[in-house]
Amino acid sequence: MAKKAINIGLVGYKFMGKAHSNAYRQVGRFFPELEVSPVLKAICGRDEQGVREAADSLGWESYETDWRKLIARDDIDVIDIATPGNSHVDIAIEAAKAGKHVFCEKPIATEAGSAKRMFDAVNSAGVKHAVFFNYRKAPAVALAKQLIEQGVIGDIFHWRGTYLQDWIVDPDFPLVWRLRKEVAGSGSHGDLAAHLIDSARYLVGEIAQVTGLLETFIKDRPEMASSAGLSGEADLSRRGKVTVDDQSLFLARFESGATGSFEATRLAPGRKNYNRFEINGSKGSLVFNMERMNELEVYTEDNAAGAYGFRTIQATAGNHPYAGHYWPVAHIIGYEHTFINFVYDALHAIANDQQPSPNFLDGYINNLVLDAVERSSRSGNWEKVQ
Amino acid sequence: MAKKAINIGLVGYKFMGKAHSNAYRQVGRFFPELEVSPVLKAICGRDEQGVREAADSLGWESYETDWRKLIARDDIDVIDIATPGNSHVDIAIEAAKAGKHVFCEKPIATEAGSAKRMFDAVNSAGVKHAVFFNYRKAPAVALAKQLIEQGVIGDIFHWRGTYLQDWIVDPDFPLVWRLRKEVAGSGSHGDLAAHLIDSARYLVGEIAQVTGLLETFIKDRPEMASSAGLSGEADLSRRGKVTVDDQSLFLARFESGATGSFEATRLAPGRKNYNRFEINGSKGSLVFNMERMNELEVYTEDNAAGAYGFRTIQATAGNHPYAGHYWPVAHIIGYEHTFINFVYDALHAIANDQQPSPNFLDGYINNLVLDAVERSSRSGNWEKVQ
Amino acid sequence: MAKKAINIGLVGYKFMGKAHSNAYRQVGRFFPELEVSPVLKAICGRDEQGVREAADSLGWESYETDWRKLIARDDIDVIDIATPGNSHVDIAIEAAKAGKHVFCEKPIATEAGSAKRMFDAVNSAGVKHAVFFNYRKAPAVALAKQLIEQGVIGDIFHWRGTYLQDWIVDPDFPLVWRLRKEVAGSGSHGDLAAHLIDSARYLVGEIAQVTGLLETFIKDRPEMASSAGLSGEADLSRRGKVTVDDQSLFLARFESGATGSFEATRLAPGRKNYNRFEINGSKGSLVFNMERMNELEVYTEDNAAGAYGFRTIQATAGNHPYAGHYWPVAHIIGYEHTFINFVYDALHAIANDQQPSPNFLDGYINNLVLDAVERSSRSGNWEKVQ
Amino acid sequence: MAKKAINIGLVGYKFMGKAHSNAYRQVGRFFPELEVSPVLKAICGRDEQGVREAADSLGWESYETDWRKLIARDDIDVIDIATPGNSHVDIAIEAAKAGKHVFCEKPIATEAGSAKRMFDAVNSAGVKHAVFFNYRKAPAVALAKQLIEQGVIGDIFHWRGTYLQDWIVDPDFPLVWRLRKEVAGSGSHGDLAAHLIDSARYLVGEIAQVTGLLETFIKDRPEMASSAGLSGEADLSRRGKVTVDDQSLFLARFESGATGSFEATRLAPGRKNYNRFEINGSKGSLVFNMERMNELEVYTEDNAAGAYGFRTIQATAGNHPYAGHYWPVAHIIGYEHTFINFVYDALHAIANDQQPSPNFLDGYINNLVLDAVERSSRSGNWEKVQ
Repeated sequence: MAKKAINIGLVGYKFMGKAHSNAYRQVGRFFPELEVSPVLKAICGRDEQGVREAADSLGWESYETDWRKLIARDDIDVIDIATPGNSHVDIAIEAAKAGKHVFCEKPIATEAGSAKRMFDAVNSAGVKHAVFFNYRKAPAVALAKQLIEQGVIGDIFHWRGTYLQDWIVDPDFPLVWRLRKEVAGSGSHGDLAAHLIDSARYLVGEIAQVTGLLETFIKDRPEMASSAGLSGEADLSRRGKVTVDDQSLFLARFESGATGSFEATRLAPGRKNYNRFEINGSKGSLVFNMERMNELEVYTEDNAAGAYGFRTIQATAGNHPYAGHYWPVAHIIGYEHTFINFVYDALHAIANDQQPSPNFLDGYINNLVLDAVERSSRSGNWEKVQ
Repeated sequence: MAKKAINIGLVGYKFMGKAHSNAYRQVGRFFPELEVSPVLKAICGRDEQGVREAADSLGWESYETDWRKLIARDDIDVIDIATPGNSHVDIAIEAAKAGKHVFCEKPIATEAGSAKRMFDAVNSAGVKHAVFFNYRKAPAVALAKQLIEQGVIGDIFHWRGTYLQDWIVDPDFPLVWRLRKEVAGSGSHGDLAAHLIDSARYLVGEIAQVTGLLETFIKDRPEMASSAGLSGEADLSRRGKVTVDDQSLFLARFESGATGSFEATRLAPGRKNYNRFEINGSKGSLVFNMERMNELEVYTEDNAAGAYGFRTIQATAGNHPYAGHYWPVAHIIGYEHTFINFVYDALHAIANDQQPSPNFLDGYINNLVLDAVERSSRSGNWEKVQ
Repeated sequence: MAKKAINIGLVGYKFMGKAHSNAYRQVGRFFPELEVSPVLKAICGRDEQGVREAADSLGWESYETDWRKLIARDDIDVIDIATPGNSHVDIAIEAAKAGKHVFCEKPIATEAGSAKRMFDAVNSAGVKHAVFFNYRKAPAVALAKQLIEQGVIGDIFHWRGTYLQDWIVDPDFPLVWRLRKEVAGSGSHGDLAAHLIDSARYLVGEIAQVTGLLETFIKDRPEMASSAGLSGEADLSRRGKVTVDDQSLFLARFESGATGSFEATRLAPGRKNYNRFEINGSKGSLVFNMERMNELEVYTEDNAAGAYGFRTIQATAGNHPYAGHYWPVAHIIGYEHTFINFVYDALHAIANDQQPSPNFLDGYINNLVLDAVERSSRSGNWEKVQ
Repeated sequence: MAKKAINIGLVGYKFMGKAHSNAYRQVGRFFPELEVSPVLKAICGRDEQGVREAADSLGWESYETDWRKLIARDDIDVIDIATPGNSHVDIAIEAAKAGKHVFCEKPIATEAGSAKRMFDAVNSAGVKHAVFFNYRKAPAVALAKQLIEQGVIGDIFHWRGTYLQDWIVDPDFPLVWRLRKEVAGSGSHGDLAAHLIDSARYLVGEIAQVTGLLETFIKDRPEMASSAGLSGEADLSRRGKVTVDDQSLFLARFESGATGSFEATRLAPGRKNYNRFEINGSKGSLVFNMERMNELEVYTEDNAAGAYGFRTIQATAGNHPYAGHYWPVAHIIGYEHTFINFVYDALHAIANDQQPSPNFLDGYINNLVLDAVERSSRSGNWEKVQ
C-alpha cells in the first residue's frame, strides 16, 4: 500500500498494447514483493476513438493521441513503446532526452544504426531501458538457462532454432503493416528471427558470423481495405508488392565455437507459434517449444536407473523460475505471463537502481545480427556480426 | 463505464480464493462485452491478518472475518464460496436466504443430502447459483462439446477419465485438511473424481449406475505442525490416521448405454495435474489432458486425403470457444483462464436473468454420483445413482 | 552347424501362422547362440490349397490337413497351436499325450476348465509348454520388468491397462470367426484383455478379485460371404447376432494390495493397436504403448539436475533386453520381433531342459481371471479369481 | 517354386551386411508376388574367419575373401556392395564390367568423380544398378511421396531436414573407420546428410545450390585397439586426429524455388537415429522421424469438422505403401523392413527389365550435392551443385 508508484505511459494499444497493459495490471497480484507499484497512467495512439476505447478496456487512467505530449507529461516515469518498428527510434530518443525510462518492443529498430542511436540516447540520459524479448521470461526458458549455467548439458555444440507460423500462407491475405518494409523493417526476420537470436544469445552466447537468405515466396498480395492490426480486410481488386521476407533462414558460428541454424517463416501450415529451439551440448540436450511453453525437454545421462531418454519437465513447479508465483505444478500459465514476468524483472531492477535485462544493448546487438543476415542474403557470403 | 456493478463477496482466500479473485479482476478486460462489472467488494476469512493481506494482494475493497457478517452486508450481490467442503452448506443456505446469488466451489457438499438442501435453498430463494466446475470452460473442452453436438464423433460408446496427481506420494507428507474426512468429505474422490464426473456428464450424459472402490494406501501420516493451505509443515514426531481415500476408481453405465471408467488418485508419480479423458464414438474419438489444456486431440475419418490419424488441435484459434477473447492462435492461455471464462458465463447469465451453467443442480447430481460410488465401495455391488 | 535340430509342426496358417513361421525362420539369425536349430517341418490346415500355398510362402517343408496326422508324425518335436480358441484344447491334449512339446496361442482355452485340462495334460506327459503372450518379449516391456525388479518405481500402487482397437466399429463389418462365441470363446475379452491380464500378472503380480462388465454395442452384423481370416466379405443381405463382447471393462485388486483397471475394446476409433499400460509405484511410474513398442516412458526422481519428468527411453540399446541382437539403438524393431524373442526364450528353455515362461500355468491362470470377469459381468459383484 | 533364381553376391558382412542379408532372406516371404527368387549365393570379406561365421549366421551358401573372385564367379547375378565408402568404386566398376547388376550402399563414392565413373560403368555395361537409400522405402516416407504427388500439401516452400545421432559424443570414443577420411570419405556428411539429401531430392526435387559448413568439434580421439565395425575398443594411451566432420550443416535452394536446411551431426545427446524432416507447402505440411518410422504427421485444412491440427498417421494400414505386405495396422515394422522393401523394388525392376530406383544416377547426384557442400565449407560461398 505504501509502495512507491511508478507511472507508465504506453505508446500503442493493439496486440502488444493489450499484452503490456495486462502485465502492468497483474504484476503486483502475482509478485506482491515487487518494491514499486506500476500505475497505468496514460496510453497513447493516433486514432482518438480507438485509444479512448483501449484506455477503458485495458484499464488506463488517461490517453493521449500524440506521443510527444505523452513524453512531455510530468506524471510519467516509464515510456513503453509497443508500436510498429519504424516509429521506435524517435519515440525512444525523445523519451530518453525527457529523462524517462524506456521500455521497447523488439526489434528495437529496423536497422542497427537506429538501434545504436537509441542505445546511445538512453546511456547519455542515464535512464533505465528494457527490450521486450519476453520469451526469456517463460519459466521453461529460464530453467534452461539455469541448467546450462549449472553445467548440466556441458559445453554447447549446436543451437537449432525455428520459429514457424502460417498466418499468411493464403496468397490473398492482405498487405498488413507487418508486410510493408517501410513500417515493419522486415518480415519474419525482425518479427520472429529476432526472438530466436535473442534466445540463442541468452542461452549460447554471442554470434560471430552468419550466412543465409531472406526470401519472399508470395510476391504480391491484396491491398488492405482497412487496417486493424495483424489482420484486416483484403481488397481483392488491388494487389501490391510484398516488400518484406516471408522467410529468414541462416547459419551461424558463435564466438564459443558452437554452430547454429535459424529459421523463421510465416509459410509453415499447421505451425501457429512454433518457436522451438534445441541445444546439444557435450553432456546433454535441451528442447523448448513455445506452443507447449510450460514444458522443457531435457536429456542427460545422470539417472541412477541407467535408462536414458528425454524427460518432459512441467516447468511449473514451485522451484522453477517464476512458476512459484502462480499456481500449483502443472496448473499451467500462458503467453501473457511471460510479459508479467518481464515487467516484474524490469521494475524490480529499476526499484534497485539496476539496469533491466534484456535491455537496449541486447536490442542493439540483436539488430547487428539481423543486419548481418541481410547483408549475407545480398552478398551470398558469411558476414561478421560487427 | 456505465455498466451496472455486481458486488462480489468471496469466502476463502487461499488457492481457490486467489483463482476466483483473479477471474473477477480480469473478466472485464478480456470480455469487454460483459453486461455487468464485477466489483471485488469484500473477502472473508477467519484469520484476520491472513485475510487482510489477501484483500490487499488480491485486490478486494474490504474484508470480513465472519461469513455471516459478509452475508448480512447490503452491498454484496454474490456470495462466492471457496472454502473447504464441510463449510459450504451453511454458508450457501444462509446466503440464499439473504437473497444473494451463490457461487460455490466443487463439490458443493460432502454428501448429497447437504447438496440437496443447498439446491432447495437457492430454488426457494429464487437466486442464481453456479458451481465451479471450471474445466468445462477450457476452450478445448468446450470445443469437444461443440464437436459432439455437431455429431462429429457419432454416438458415444466409451468414456475413459483419469485424474492423476502425485503430491502426497511421500508417506511423510502431512495431514493437511484435504486428508481429513471431517473437513474435506473425501480425498481424491471429491477433489478430483468430481471433476471427471462433471466432464462426463457435460460431454456424455447422465450416469445411471456405478461400481468401484475407494482406497487409502498410506494409512497414517505426520500431523501438521502448521496449516497453510494445500501444503504445510509436517510434525514428524506425531502420526495420525488418514481418513480419506488416496484413490477413487470406478466403472459406470451411462443412461445412454455408454460405458465409462473413472480413476482419481494422488499417488501417481510424475502425474501433476493429469486430468485426461478420452471419448470413443461410432465415428470418432476425442482426447483432452489438462496438462496440455490448450490442445484437443480429435480422430475422425473425414479428410479428403484418406490418411487418418489423431489430430492435435491448438484450441486457441479465434473460432474456438472463448479463445478469441485472448491472444492469437497458439499464444496459449492457462489454468486461471478457465475461471475467467467461468465467471464470464455466470455473470453474463445473471445479467440476462438466466441460470448459470453448471449450477447447483449439477453440483447436486455430482454428489449423487459420488455417493453412489461410496456406497458401491462398501457394498461391492453396482449402485444406482438415485 | 552341428546344432541339434528341433522340428516344429504348426497348426494354423493365417495371421498368427505367419507370425510364428517368421519367428522360427528368423530366430537363429538374430540369436546365433541358440543351442538348437528349429526346423519348419510341417504346417497344418484344413483347406489343402490354402495350407499348401502357406507352406510354400512361409517356408515349411511339408503340410498336413489333419492335425491328428501331424501329431502322429515321428519327425515333429513341437506342436505349435495357432488356431482359433475353441480348437486348442483337443490339439494340445493329444499333442501332449503323443509326447510333443506344446506351444499355444493365447488364450489357451475358451474357459478355465479346458485350460486346466490342458495344463494337467502337459504336466502328466512331462513335456514342455509355452503360451504366446508375446508382448512380454517386447524389449520395452522386459525393461519395465527389470526396472520393477530393481525397485526403481518402488512398491506398486496402481495398474492401468487399456487395449483399444477400432477394426469393427463399422456396423457392417461382418461376422468373422472372432465375433462368434462358439469359435472364439469371447470377443475383445479373450483376444485383448487376455494380453493386459498377462502383462499385469508379469509386472504387478497375481490378481485376487475383479468386478466388471462385458458389453456388446453392435448386436447384429452381416453374415460372412466368405471367410478369410480377420477380415472377409460381408453379405449385406443377411444379418446375424454377435455373440461375443465388443468391450471388456473391469477393476481388479491384486494380491499385493495394488488396484488395477482393465479395458479392452474394438470400438475406439483411431486406436489401432493401442495396448497401453501405466504403472504407478511409490517411487516412480512406467508407461508402455504397443503402438510405439520400442519406447518406454519412465518417471523417477533420481536425476542429479533435480528437473523431473517422464523420460522417453528408446528401449533399443545394446544393454536393453533382446535389443542387442538386432540393430543399433533407435533402428527400431517391430511386432514380429516379439515372436522371435518369444521363440528364442522358449527353445532356449527346452534346450536347457527348463520350462518356458510364460507357459500353460500362466495360460490357465489367465483363463481363471477371464472367467472371473465373466462371472462378475453376470453377477454384478466382485468375484474372486479362484 | 518355379520362380527364376537370381543369385546374390554380397561384399561386406557387418552392420550393413546383416541388414542386406536379412532383406534377401525375407523378401520372398512378405512379397510372394516377387517374380524372382533371390539366392544368398556368396558373401565376401577379407577376414576369413569373420566371413565364414557371417556366411553361417546370415544364411549364405558360400563365402569369398577376395571380391575379385566373387565377381569372377559365373553363378553370381548381382554384386551388392556393403563395404566402407572408399572401396565402392573399384568393386562397382569391375562388377559392371563383368556384366553383373550392381547394388551399392550409400554414398556410392567418396566424391562425385568416382561416382561419375561408377555411373558411366554401369551404363556402358548395360547392367541394372541400385543405391541403398533405404529410407525412401519406409512406408511413411513413401506415403509422404504419394501425398505430395496428389497435391495434398500444394507447392512446396520449405524443406527442413535433420539427422541427429550421439554415438561419438564421448571424446574417448575411438577412431573407428567411420572417423577416418581415407576410408569413409567424410563423417556425418556422407553417412547421414547423404540420406537427408536423398529424401529431399525424392520428395522436393533437385537441389540447385548450397552454402554451409563441415565442422569437427572433437579433434582427436583414442586410436583403436581392435576393429569391430561401428564400435571397437579404444586404446586410451594413443590419440589420433579425427579427419572427418562431426557435423554437416547447410542451406539449399532447390530448382523449384523452395528453400531447405540440412543438418547432420553425431554430437546430439539423446538423439539416436533422429532422421527427421518437415516439409511445408502452400496447402499443408508433412513430418517424418525415423525414430518413429511407422508414423507420418500430416497437416491439411481439408476436414469437415474445421478443427485443424497435425494428424499422426500410423502408416501401417493395408492401403499404405508396402504396409499391406506385413502385419495388421499398427502392428509395426522396423528398420530392417526398409531394406526388404528396397530389395523387393530393385529385384522387381530387374525382373521387368527396368532400372531400379534409386539408382546410380541418384547416387551420383547425391555425391554432387555432398561435394558442393564441401566446396562451400571451404569457400564460404554459395556453390552450385553442378
